[in-house]
Parts: sequence; C-alpha cells; structure tokens
Amino acid sequence: MIGNFSYLNATKLYFGDDSLKFLNEELPKYGKNVVLIYGGGSIKKTGLYDDVLSVLKANGKTVFEDGGVMPNPTTDKLREGVKIARDAKADLLLAVGGGSCCDYAKAVAVSVNCDEDPWDKYFLRFEEPSCEILPVGCVLTMAGTGSEMNGGSVITDSATNTKIGHVFGSEVMPKFSILNPKYTMSLPKYQMIAGIYDIFSHICEQYFSGDDTNVSDYIAEALMKSVIDASRVAVKNPEDYEARSNIMWAATWALNTLIAKGKTTDWMVHMLGQAVGGYTDATHGMTLAAVTLPYFRCILEAGLAKFKRFATEVWNVNPEGKTDKEVAEEGLAALEAWMREIGLVMNITDLGATEDMIEDIADKVIVLTGGYKVLTRDEIVKVLRESLN
Amino acid sequence: MIGNFSYLNATKLYFGDDSLKFLNEELPKYGKNVVLIYGGGSIKKTGLYDDVLSVLKANGKTVFEDGGVMPNPTTDKLREGVKIARDAKADLLLAVGGGSCCDYAKAVAVSVNCDEDPWDKYFLRFEEPSCEILPVGCVLTMAGTGSEMNGGSVITDSATNTKIGHVFGSEVMPKFSILNPKYTMSLPKYQMIAGIYDIFSHICEQYFSGDDTNVSDYIAEALMKSVIDASRVAVKNPEDYEARSNIMWAATWALNTLIAKGKTTDWMVHMLGQAVGGYTDATHGMTLAAVTLPYFRCILEAGLAKFKRFATEVWNVNPEGKTDKEVAEEGLAALEAWMREIGLVMNITDLGATEDMIEDIADKVIVLTGGYKVLTRDEIVKVLRESLN
Repeated sequence: MIGNFSYLNATKLYFGDDSLKFLNEELPKYGKNVVLIYGGGSIKKTGLYDDVLSVLKANGKTVFEDGGVMPNPTTDKLREGVKIARDAKADLLLAVGGGSCCDYAKAVAVSVNCDEDPWDKYFLRFEEPSCEILPVGCVLTMAGTGSEMNGGSVITDSATNTKIGHVFGSEVMPKFSILNPKYTMSLPKYQMIAGIYDIFSHICEQYFSGDDTNVSDYIAEALMKSVIDASRVAVKNPEDYEARSNIMWAATWALNTLIAKGKTTDWMVHMLGQAVGGYTDATHGMTLAAVTLPYFRCILEAGLAKFKRFATEVWNVNPEGKTDKEVAEEGLAALEAWMREIGLVMNITDLGATEDMIEDIADKVIVLTGGYKVLTRDEIVKVLRESLN
Repeated sequence: MIGNFSYLNATKLYFGDDSLKFLNEELPKYGKNVVLIYGGGSIKKTGLYDDVLSVLKANGKTVFEDGGVMPNPTTDKLREGVKIARDAKADLLLAVGGGSCCDYAKAVAVSVNCDEDPWDKYFLRFEEPSCEILPVGCVLTMAGTGSEMNGGSVITDSATNTKIGHVFGSEVMPKFSILNPKYTMSLPKYQMIAGIYDIFSHICEQYFSGDDTNVSDYIAEALMKSVIDASRVAVKNPEDYEARSNIMWAATWALNTLIAKGKTTDWMVHMLGQAVGGYTDATHGMTLAAVTLPYFRCILEAGLAKFKRFATEVWNVNPEGKTDKEVAEEGLAALEAWMREIGLVMNITDLGATEDMIEDIADKVIVLTGGYKVLTRDEIVKVLRESLN
C-alpha cells in the first residue's frame, strides 16, 4: 500500500565540471554577510578555497570564516559556529566541503535565531525550528551523505559521544548546491569508498521495509545498480569522470526523500553505525559497512520476500530450484563479495572497536521501528558482537 | 558522458486518497480571484467539481469558470482562456482535470500578461516568457502526461491542425499539484490504458538516446518496470488502489525532467504521434502506441546497444547464444506482447488515419536530432506507412 505523503524539494542544483560559476547566479539573492564553512583545510590545498573566495569577493560579499568542521561535527563546534554566525549577522551560510560541512551548516542555520540549546531542542527532543532559519548554500566536495539536497543534519554530542541525526523539513534544505564531480576526485580513496557505501546504505535503509513494492522500491534498485556499476569503475580508476559523476548524482537521489515516499523505512544500520562512530570516531560509511551483514542476517527471515527480491533484481541471482531463503542468502553473499571487492572495512574491530565497548555501544543504539524487525537489546549486542569479526 | 545541467523542481505535491484537503493549505497563499479550469464536465459527474468549489468558497475565493478544455487544447480555446483570466484579474489558475487541462493552464499563465500571440511566440518561435507568469495549481484526475510537475504545454493550432509542445522552465511549473489515485479511477479504461502508454513512451523518449549509461537510464528502467507491473494489475482490476497509485506516481517522475538530466533525449515518437493526433484528434497515448514499433525498428541498428540493454534489463531477455540484434529484437517483441496484452491501439488506421493522409501527416512531423538517428523524409513516410497496419 502506498501511504499518503507530500513532496517538496526546492534545492536548486548545478551539476557539472563548470558548475562553480553558477555561484554568481545565486549570491546576488542574499545579503552581504556570508559565513564560509569548511573542514580541515583540504579545500585550501586543492585551490577551491581561493576559487570560492574570489567569487564571493567579486560579488561584494563580506566573508566570515568558520573552518575546522570535523568529520563528525560536535556540539562544541556547533555552539562555536552559532556564535560566529550571530556575530557576523550572517545572511547566508556557504558550506564548502562534504556532508559533514553541509549537515553542520544546517544545524547552525536553525540555531542562530533560537534561544534554546540546539542539542537539547533538535537532537534530543527532535523539535522543529520555530525561529527564522538562515539560508544555506553548498559547494560539495564529497559524494555520499545526500546532505546537499535534504534537510538532514547529524551532530555528535561532545559530552556523551552520542551521534544523532535530525531530518528537518524542506525549509532547512540548502537553497542551492553546486555539484562538481571533479571536486570529489581530490578525496583519498578510503573516503571515496566510504562515501560509496554510505550511498548504498541510504538506499538499503529505505528499501528494506514495507510489505509490498511501490515505485520507490524500483527506483531504489536502479540507484543501487548504478552505484554498484560505477563503484567498480571508480575503484579501478578514481579519475573516471563518468563514474564519479554517476556516484555523485546517485548520492543526491539516494537521500533527498524521493525513495522513501509512500513507504516505511528502516535506518537501523545507521543507528548501529552511528553508535559505533560515536565511540570510535571512525568514518561514517565504514561504520555502516562493518555492521550491515550481521544486521541483515539478523532480519533476513523477517524480511524474506524483500531480501529475495534484492537478490534477483539487484544481484541477478537465478532463483530456479532454490528456496526463498537460499536465494536471499545468495543475494547477501553477492553484496558481501562486492563490498570486499571495492575495499570496504568489513568489521568494527578494524575501526577501533573492542569487545569491552560492546555493551556501551549497545546503550547508545537508538531502536527504530520501521523495519522488518524491532531489535531487542540482546539482538543489538549479538549484531555488534558479530560485527567484531 | 554525463553532460552539465541544472535541476530545480519546486512543485509541491500532495499524494494520497485524502489529498484534496491540502488545497486549504495552498489557497491562502494566493489572491482572491481563481479561474477554475476544467474539461468536458466529467468532474461534475464525479462530484469533484462540487468538492473543489466548496473548498474554494470556504477559502473566500471568487471563482471564474473556464470549462470545456478539450483533450488536445486548441489555440482558439487558449485565446478564449486568456480573455477569461484577464477579465477575472486572476490570481491563480486552478486546473482540475488531466494533463490537457494542466497544459492549457500553463499556456494561459504565460499569455495573460503577454501582448504577443501565444501560438506565434511560444509554439512557433519557442520563445521564453518575458512577462509576469500567473501561478498554476493542479488537481489531477488522469495519470499520464506528467504535466502536474513539469513546465510542458502542448497546444494544437486550430487553423492548421499543428500540435506543438513547449517545455517551459521551472517558473511555469505548477506551484502545487494534488494527486489522488482514486480520481483516476473514474476514467474510462481506454483512457487509462492510453495514459499508461503515454507514461511508458515518455520514459522511452528519454532512454533511447546517448552512447553511455548514466543514473538517469537506470531510473528510467526502474520506472518502466514499475509501469509494466502495475499496468498488468490495473488492466485486470482498474479499482486496484496500489496499482493506480504506482501508475500515478511513476507518471510524475517519468516527465518532471529528472530522467533527462545529463543526457540527450529523442522525442521522435511524440513528434510522429502528435502529427497523427493533429489529423485525427485521436487520444494522445494511442497515437504514440500506434507509431512506436515501426519507429523503433527503424532506429534499432543505430541504437543497438541501448535496445539490447532494454531487452535484458526491462524485459529479462536472456542474451546467451544470441547476437545483439536478436536480443534487441526479442526486447521489442516483448514490448509488443505487453502492448497488445494491455489493449493498446497498435496502428494508426484504427485511429482514423488513412493512406492518403500520410504525406500530409509527414509534412507536420517535426524532425528532432537528439536520438540515435535523424529521420529523413522517406523514413518518416515509411514509419507512418508501416504504422497503418
């Protein structure tokens, strides 16, 4: 059954190897005070920082710097960013970087005019913004999170290592995003591969739920196949523009709300991965990879029909003469083979997690109810333990 | 190669069996003068007319009627509609009906504040609007054209029987569209089937072009498979809400610009079908069905790799031990079998075209250059002649 829903996504996207020039079309729409948000400084090495700054200056903007956004942006950093934006009387937050920068910019955007503590309000109480929201623009340098065309923001509490994501509504989505596949080529291969798996996992989270099959599931399969095919090219040749373009474009559509329309979603791989990430500060996509297979094996019987479909439609498993469970397991084996082929981290031990952390990590796992199975505490611990190897 | 592009689609969609109530959220955004655009009066029989009118009145709107929009809206009707909207000092054009009503509303929207003749400016000279554009809202009663979330408008010149479509930019797209699958159930089965093929053809027009395969092609295949699967259910049971929902939602994404991003498109089936439609006033989707196979067979060798992929990915043709051409032809045979199964009109003779019209119809075919082959006059005549049987 397709459930009732509304859809609005008004982010303007500029895609291509010349897309930075369109910043000149967007900047005149906003006031003169721009906070330039970026990460550890890689954009200074690549020259993108200078390129963006020169477009900002040419458009008469006063630029305020907010650099040093970390891969898992913390509440300490968020509070610092809110102060920078307030002091700047910011008219626009321009995030230049990966999903973390964009997530962080959205968290600042909803907090600048809000008196309450953002962590308490948005991430612990999941409230919606009631204040004026600053506009966010994005120049994306990494494909993966989909943050460039959605309202999502994942923040880690500095005090408790708790990582929580809030998906805000369309009013928090970036007003514009500039997607140049060439920018993603400056990433280390490890980050590229982690981003690829982040995309794939986003699709799975929305796919593995629901009793019947609507258009969203067909599109999800298409995006998965596209990512699989392009990843095999990109891993061999990270400079392949076509492959990097497909990965970047698939990433956007994997998490801009479309493929969740009319259906339930799961997101337990993210809940497990984020709990691991809160403890290890490991790369997000790798935490997802490391917990996926134990989790999928845990819910396989509960979602057998969909796992069978996943096997035949995404991995071309021939179902003839096999039980549904055999077909489904063959699909997971094909998934595992692809994951190993592209070089993902396949266990949380390699990410720095140890046996003695399991109970604490399990404490931090938020249990969601949209998937095929609502995990018990014992099942969470079991999945995490199996993820050690 | 993924070409450079921009993407913006800000139409707000309300989807579901209770979606009309969201008109109450949208109407307060516009002034009091609303032109209610509808077709031959079927919405009066179904009660939808009364339902919409009562929401309009409850929101304090002054309603001006513009009924009688025909399946292929003409320039005579368009000029009449422009006068109605001008006299009404319209603040909003609300189209309640199928794609024709929505196409027509967009043509009125770009013409009300324009001094030039709309046919000359927009459809013969393909110019963009330079005047203020009226906002359009849509309550959709037929799935097929995608008009509810795009800038397209197809108009037929009353004087010359010439049918031309102009795809306007995002500023002409409906501000909101209400999609209730139940409304589509009031359609005669013939119209439902024609709509299904219109959707499928939209996808094909964007799929059968380009040398390599980007995300758009994968999504196109997903939409095709979804439409094929849902059509088989809907033809047996037109009251199946799930199937009608999937068809309606796939229709929107089949033609809201997404699957054309980064690639070339063809649209020659539409050029051929529209030329036939200009002469016969036949239902749009049926004209497309009647010319598709002769056209595809004409371009098959030029686009062999994509036709092979179409066969294996969409129709599960097993390629083992077969030449590429054999695989591709098996795909077209599967397409033909499905078309016959759901009851499409398979030749233009059944639509009222005759041998002696062929040369005149050929004169009206606009030859586009984005596909695998640029048709010569002789090839156009050949395809049309083959479409007679």
